[in-house]
Formats: sequence, structure tokens, C-alpha cells
Amino acid sequence: MTAAPVWSVDPRTGKRCAQVTGESSTAGVDRAVRAAHTARGALADRAARVRLLRTAADTLDAARPELTAAADAETALGTARLTGELARTTAQLRAFAEVVADGSFLDIRIDHADDSRTPPWPDLRRYRVPLGVVAVYAASNFPLAFSVPGGDTASALAAGCPVVVKAHPGHPATAELCAALLRGAARRAGVAEDVIAVVHGFDAGTDLIHHPLVAAAGFTGSVRGGRALHDLAAARPVPIPFHGELGSLNPVVVTEAAAAERAEELGTGLAGSMTLGEGQFCTKPGLVLAPAGPAGDRLLTALTGAVTAHDPGVLLDGRMRTAFLDGVAERLRLPSVTAPVTPGAGPGPTTVTAGVLTLPAAPLTDGGPHDLLLEECFGPVTVVARYTSTDEITAVLDRLPGNLTATLQLSTAESRGEGDAAALLDRLTPLAGRILAGGWPTGVAVAPAQHHGGPYPATTSTGTSVGTTAVERWLRPVTYQTVPDALLPPELREDNPLGLPRRVDGRPPAVDGDPDLPATW
Amino acid sequence: MTAAPVWSVDPRTGKRCAQVTGESSTAGVDRAVRAAHTARGALADRAARVRLLRTAADTLDAARPELTAAADAETALGTARLTGELARTTAQLRAFAEVVADGSFLDIRIDHADDSRTPPWPDLRRYRVPLGVVAVYAASNFPLAFSVPGGDTASALAAGCPVVVKAHPGHPATAELCAALLRGAARRAGVAEDVIAVVHGFDAGTDLIHHPLVAAAGFTGSVRGGRALHDLAAARPVPIPFHGELGSLNPVVVTEAAAAERAEELGTGLAGSMTLGEGQFCTKPGLVLAPAGPAGDRLLTALTGAVTAHDPGVLLDGRMRTAFLDGVAERLRLPSVTAPVTPGAGPGPTTVTAGVLTLPAAPLTDGGPHDLLLEECFGPVTVVARYTSTDEITAVLDRLPGNLTATLQLSTAESRGEGDAAALLDRLTPLAGRILAGGWPTGVAVAPAQHHGGPYPATTSTGTSVGTTAVERWLRPVTYQTVPDALLPPELREDNPLGLPRRVDGRPPAVDGDPDLPATW
Repeated sequence: MTAAPVWSVDPRTGKRCAQVTGESSTAGVDRAVRAAHTARGALADRAARVRLLRTAADTLDAARPELTAAADAETALGTARLTGELARTTAQLRAFAEVVADGSFLDIRIDHADDSRTPPWPDLRRYRVPLGVVAVYAASNFPLAFSVPGGDTASALAAGCPVVVKAHPGHPATAELCAALLRGAARRAGVAEDVIAVVHGFDAGTDLIHHPLVAAAGFTGSVRGGRALHDLAAARPVPIPFHGELGSLNPVVVTEAAAAERAEELGTGLAGSMTLGEGQFCTKPGLVLAPAGPAGDRLLTALTGAVTAHDPGVLLDGRMRTAFLDGVAERLRLPSVTAPVTPGAGPGPTTVTAGVLTLPAAPLTDGGPHDLLLEECFGPVTVVARYTSTDEITAVLDRLPGNLTATLQLSTAESRGEGDAAALLDRLTPLAGRILAGGWPTGVAVAPAQHHGGPYPATTSTGTSVGTTAVERWLRPVTYQTVPDALLPPELREDNPLGLPRRVDGRPPAVDGDPDLPATW
Repeated sequence: MTAAPVWSVDPRTGKRCAQVTGESSTAGVDRAVRAAHTARGALADRAARVRLLRTAADTLDAARPELTAAADAETALGTARLTGELARTTAQLRAFAEVVADGSFLDIRIDHADDSRTPPWPDLRRYRVPLGVVAVYAASNFPLAFSVPGGDTASALAAGCPVVVKAHPGHPATAELCAALLRGAARRAGVAEDVIAVVHGFDAGTDLIHHPLVAAAGFTGSVRGGRALHDLAAARPVPIPFHGELGSLNPVVVTEAAAAERAEELGTGLAGSMTLGEGQFCTKPGLVLAPAGPAGDRLLTALTGAVTAHDPGVLLDGRMRTAFLDGVAERLRLPSVTAPVTPGAGPGPTTVTAGVLTLPAAPLTDGGPHDLLLEECFGPVTVVARYTSTDEITAVLDRLPGNLTATLQLSTAESRGEGDAAALLDRLTPLAGRILAGGWPTGVAVAPAQHHGGPYPATTSTGTSVGTTAVERWLRPVTYQTVPDALLPPELREDNPLGLPRRVDGRPPAVDGDPDLPATW
């Protein structure tokens, strides 16, 4: 039986440009997972992981021209954006090298034996070990930063877990190129190349989630696809953690005072955020609560002006475009919804123009057909709901599902704590994993304090897929009880030979030895 | 419609002694969950949680005579054991008060804005917030420490989550008494009493897991019951974290040299551990790999001698006894299995005698009918498999499911690192959440470095249900981006008014203010 071909398609023309490979068979997925499982020992040594992550970053940076060209040919995201995305991707790999070297993520706790307790405590020493092979499902909208060499892969490798990536069908050639570069980097870093592999095809995705040697999964994509994989992961004979990032509306609340103070700045800022990457960001602001009345009118005017001036853009593929146009049309059929700028089909086969929908906030509060507006519509459109009271804001917020982000636009006086600002912030916190005051939700820094996750359907777990704590998703604790020093892993030995930060006898973490690896280089 | 009665049954006689209450209706469960959700604000203040946990501990200690009498009447565990279990339970509540006061569990991270990054980092501040109402499913075998006032409840309250407990049908009167004491303690601590409630009945358990305001669940019990609830939690419109502790075989490997050195000590130690609480511990050693030959024979002789001398004991209820006797009979029908001491029915309606089964290790390696011996058999029985080579040990370990614990019994020389000890320890680590060298797995210290969890079916998540990190299960991170100081939660304000340990700009946690709450009192 011949494998179904996997094509690289140019979104600008809608035409196939090359056959990249064939869809992975069940046997092929099995081979990749078994090889990754067999290679897991190559990641046991933290120094090897640091070498791998840094070499991978250097290798990808060195391949920038080919990589951005390959990704642009398949995604039409443009060289400038893809150059930035590659820089983010390699900075992320280097950040995880620092995480590994620092060692805090091991969360080492040592409790010496304590006979004063009833009953006495034995000597207990705990750290975190890698879960095993991680399945990563690549995203459509970030061919690098959330795909083969992206955050799930970088954090899993940092944790010591080999990775098998299910490539996104929108950019299979980029996936193959990245996999070849990463496997080459592994070889040069002295690590078995099988710690990273790529498979292709829908069936490969389900084969992967069912494989008994797959120990956890990371996913970035749609609610439908992510929920299906989540359910398969939970229904396995041995269920596994499924860290899915599915969908988010990313509500924005603009107070009356904020609109009065800077309506034009907010309108153009919002236009920039919602059209960034042609609205194909999981953090796109999709619902804006703006005041009825003149200040809100000014905001809407500035927004529609900027959106009208936005050039038609190419979506990732024809399926995205169809879903976008259908989603917009369905929303426009709802009573009271109007389009100051109608999103529409652009000249090319996957081109669209950005748009804005608006309506009074009231219909969003009653659980009727307008609930459709509380679902994400992927692409360059946002919905501006005009409220007439704070109660109406609250009533809409009460109906929202979980989100990655929630943003509050405040006036200068409100930022000092005046008015309802604190109460509004309290209403937003239960809704999302990241709460912004000012600024826009697009743009997610890879920082220690980052959290990119939120109540379902934003994510299916309490983990984050961006930021250094993403590594925690791929680890489980193990405690050693009264194990003699000679047999303990070096991380837990009494003299701390690796110089790791450890919580000893309940005290805050401290390094009681010399660090083995330099965290910053 | 009248609610089905909930009876308190004396296991010593098998007779109903009192009708405690009626099974909770769907409306009753809804009321309890809504009241808990409404009361959640009472737990927002860390000082209130500390007061609640300490007052609860004092209240339960003061009620020791009634509590141990009530629990003994329903479980027949005996006053001595229950007095110890109560002490453990109240020490656990106080330990979680310390966790709350210390504040490390908030995992606060602050990254100041950094324009030197590309793109620039905004100010980001992250901590962990409570998930919401937690459903706790009480265990049969610990009417206090893993039931209404147990570890799941204590850790959830510490996290700031109200709790609705589904009482175990084996000790409903104890559950009601505990709930009344805890609600009274809440009132005296100035906390709304609805932060803790109890419901009864099988249907109440499924109503609870389906309730939209239930945000997470903790469970201790059988694989069958836990898996069913896990699957319901995953299938909800909004899936929720399900932290279940289901079943564990707790393998023990005795090396040839260890047996040669201290066969008798090992045999009697094993007898003590496997008969503790009449074998009704989730950490009971259920499979022992002991060497064939004279040293192993001595171990078996000491074991069978001690088990024979063990008095008949009362199991928790008639259903447990039937399952135990059926499980033993089924195992005894397997080829090559013999019983040096046959576990059997004792004089009372729920009484049994402890026993030992034995067989050569080889049949456990081939995936045949002997796989039954790789499943937990709840009650006072252990299986001793006699191996003839290290390869045979490895072959059996390769077939084991996940476990809470795995124990290695080593000789003095092996403890210094001689022989195969290190390799054996490496084989045990993937199998369990706690690895012991020497000692026995029963007895789980409530310590910072504890981990009571393990690969499925030991637990359904990577969390622990014992030890101070159990609090982490009921929290999710939230990041605040460029939120003005005046609007930030006090935990995240620049001047650290609560004196909490915080990771600032990637540095290790430090307290940059005066702690608001004394951790140790």
C-alpha cells in the first residue's frame, strides 16, 4: 500500500508546489515512538540537554534564509514576520537551556530523618523526573514557534523527554526541514538524533495519542481537534496528560473614562492587534466591550478607519478562509449585528480583508443566538459590543467561557485605583490566565512570569505553553526514602555535587554546593 | 419522594446500628456546591485559611473520644489505630496552615519590564489562584486521614478552595460528625461554614463530578470507581482535573545478599507491613520478589510464621471481605500458586485471617493468566514470587503497572553501591512515585519531600495526595501584565507588603519584605 502523498501548498496561489513526503503509517509512527523511547537515556544528563538546546538554536539561526523561505512559501506569513518568529524560536530554545542549567525546575526537596515527629519521619528526597516520550501537535499559525522547534518541543526536551511531532498539514516542508536541522543539531551535540522526529497525516495524529509509549501530549489548535485528542488521551487504557491550547476570545473591556481619554489611540491599537498575522493569533482580541455614546463612537471610528486602511491579507490556507468567511456571514445574520467594515473575500484564492462587527451589549447577556459571538472566529475580525452600564459589562463577562487573556483599558485616574477598576479586574481574573491593564494581548513574552493558558477551552490543563514554567508539564515527582547516598541520583546526594538549588528541611531553596552548569552564557 | 436511608453498619456484627441521614438528592448536591461556591470569598484571605486549618485541628483533637468511638463503631479499626490516625489528621491540617503562612506555594514570579529584550518584555507578575469548589471522594480505609477532614480537604482549603465531600458509605456517621466539627471550626475561625459540606450516596458522587461549579476533584479508592469518575470528569463539557489515587501493588525486591544477611528480619518486617490495618492500606506490599534457595526459604519461613501468629481481623465491611476471599480463591486456582498460609474467612461476619501465596517468578513474565497476580488484592495477603536470576527480576518488573511505591531490600555491601543495586534502583524508578531502600512502604509521612502518587493506575495525575505539595493540585497560575501597582493583588505589589517569597527577574525565591503570617507557631 502506498502512503497518501503530503503536499506543500502555496497559499498565495492555492496551488501544490511540491510533494514533501507520504503520510506516516501506523508502523511508521510506532517506529518513531519506539526509537524516541529507546533514545531517552541520551537526555538523562542535564549537560547534554543544554548542549542540544543551544546547538539547536544555533543551527536554526544559521539556516535562517532557507527556513524563512520554506515557511513563507507554505504560510504566506512574510519574511519579516517569519524572521521575527525564528528569533523568538531560537531565543526560546536558549531560554530552556538556561532553565535546565539553573535546575530550579527539578523542585528538589530534602527532608532529613526526624525522630521528633510522631511517627518519626524517614529520610525523604524528592525531585522531578521526565515523563517519557511526548507527542507534540504542531499549530497552523506559527510554523516555527509553535511547531516542530517550538515551545512544546523545547520544554519537553528541557524536561528530558524525547519528542515526536505530528506536523501541521499546512507546512509539511518546513516541518521536515526543521526536523532535519534538529536531528543534525542533536548529532553534533552528541545526543541520539531519535530524541526528535516528525510524523505526517491525520491518522498519524491518532496513532500517536494511542501509542502506549507516549507519556504526554502537547497541542495547539482548534477546539474541535484539541477536544477530540483530549478525549482520546483520557480514554486510553493508561490515560496521559494532555496539554492542549484550544481557543480563546480574549475579551477587552474599555472603560468609559479610558475611551474618553484616548479613544483614537485605543481604536488604532486595537486595529493593529486584531489584524496582526491576519488575525490568526490565539491571543487576537475577539470581543471588545466599549461604551455606547460619543467616546465609544470615536473609538469605533478610529478602529474602522485603521481596519479599512489595512491591506487585504493571505490566510494560511483555503480552509481557514472558508471558515472565516462562513463565520463572519453567520455572525452578520444575527439581529442587531452590523458591520462598519465588512470582512470579506480578497483578490487571491486565500486572501481576505479585515473587518469589524458591532452590536449593543444587551443581546450577549441572555443566552440566545448571540452566544455565537462568544466563540472565537479565527481571522481578522473583531466584535465591538457597546455597553450602557457597568452592570451590562458584568453580565457579558458572566457569560464568557475560559480565555488565554483578558484585557482592561483604563483611564489614568482608574489606573491609580479610582472608580470601578479594581472590581473590574476582579471580574476578569476568573476568566483568563493572563490579565492585562493597557496594551494588547497579542505578543507573549517567553519569560519566567509568563502564563499562556487559562480555563477551558483556552487550555485543557493548568499548565502553560509559553514561558519557562512550561517545562513543568513534562515531569513527575519521585521521592526516595532512606536510599543510601551511594545509590541516590547525584541531584539528591547529601553533598549536592551538582550545586543545585534545593529545599532542605522545609527551608527556602538554596544552593549548598557549586553549580555544575553555568545558567547564563 | 423520600431519600434512600444511609445506615451506619457495625463491621463486627454486620448489623445496622443507626440511620445517619438520607442519600443526597441532585438538588441537595446542587445546594451544597452552590453554597460552597458562594462562600469561596471567605477563603481569599490567607490569614483566614490559617485560622480555619488550625481551629479545625484543635476542634478535632478536642473531640477525640467521640471521633474515635464513632469511627471505630463503623470501621472496627480499633481505638489505638484511630487515635493515631486522628493525630495524623490534625497534624496534617496544621502542616497545611504552615504551608499557607509560608506562601511559597503561590510560586510568585515577577519579571520587571525589560526593553533590552527583542521584542521588549512588559512587566509580568504571576502567582497561583484557587481553582474553585473541589469535590473530594472519601476513602474506605481511612475514615479520618483520607476522608472528610483528610489530606484532600486540608490541601484544598489551604489552596483557598471550598470543599464538598462525597462521604464513603462505610462510615457515614463519622463523616457527619467530622463535617459538623469542621463547620463549627469555620464559624469560630470567622469563615463561612459552607466552605465545607458533605453529601451521601452513589448518585451524589456522579452529580458532584458533573456539577458545572465543581472545578476539580480528589479521589482515593478502587481502580474501578476511580476510573469511572476520571472518565466522567474528562467527558464534561468543561473537563476538570481529576486527582485519583486508585490502586497499587507496591512491589518489593529482596536481593539474594539481603536475604542471606537478614532473612528473618525481612520476613517478620514484611508480615508486619502487609497485615497493618488488615492489609487495607494503599501502600500494602502486595508482590515480593524473593530469591529461590535457602535464604529465600528462611525469609518465607519467618514471614509465614509471623502471618500465622497474626490474629484474625475485621475488614471494613462485608463487601471488602467477599472481594478479598474471592480474589484469594481466584489467585489460588492459578497453576504453580501455593499458599504456605491460606488467607481465609474468620469467625465474624467480616473477619478474615491473613495469608501468603507463593510461586516461581517465571509465570509472571509471560503475560498469561498469572497477570492477575500483578493486580492489587485489597486485604491481608501478599504474593511471594521466587526468582532464580536478576534477569527474572527485571522481566517481572517490566510487566508491572504503575505503583505508589517500590521497595528494594539490599545488603550492607549493596547499600554501599556494590553489585546490581544501582541498576535495580534504576529499574524501580519508572514504576513508582516513592522508591524505598530498606523499610516498608506502609506509613506515609506528611512531609515537604513526600510524594504519594505514581504512574497510572497508582494515580490519574502527577500530583500527590500526601505531603505539603498536595496543595499544588488545586491552583492555577495567573499572570498580570502591566497592571498598575494600585490594582495588583497585594501578593504581587512592588513593595511586597505581605513579605512573601518571590522569584524576581529570574533570581531564586527571596523574601523582600516582612512576612505577614508566622509560619510556625
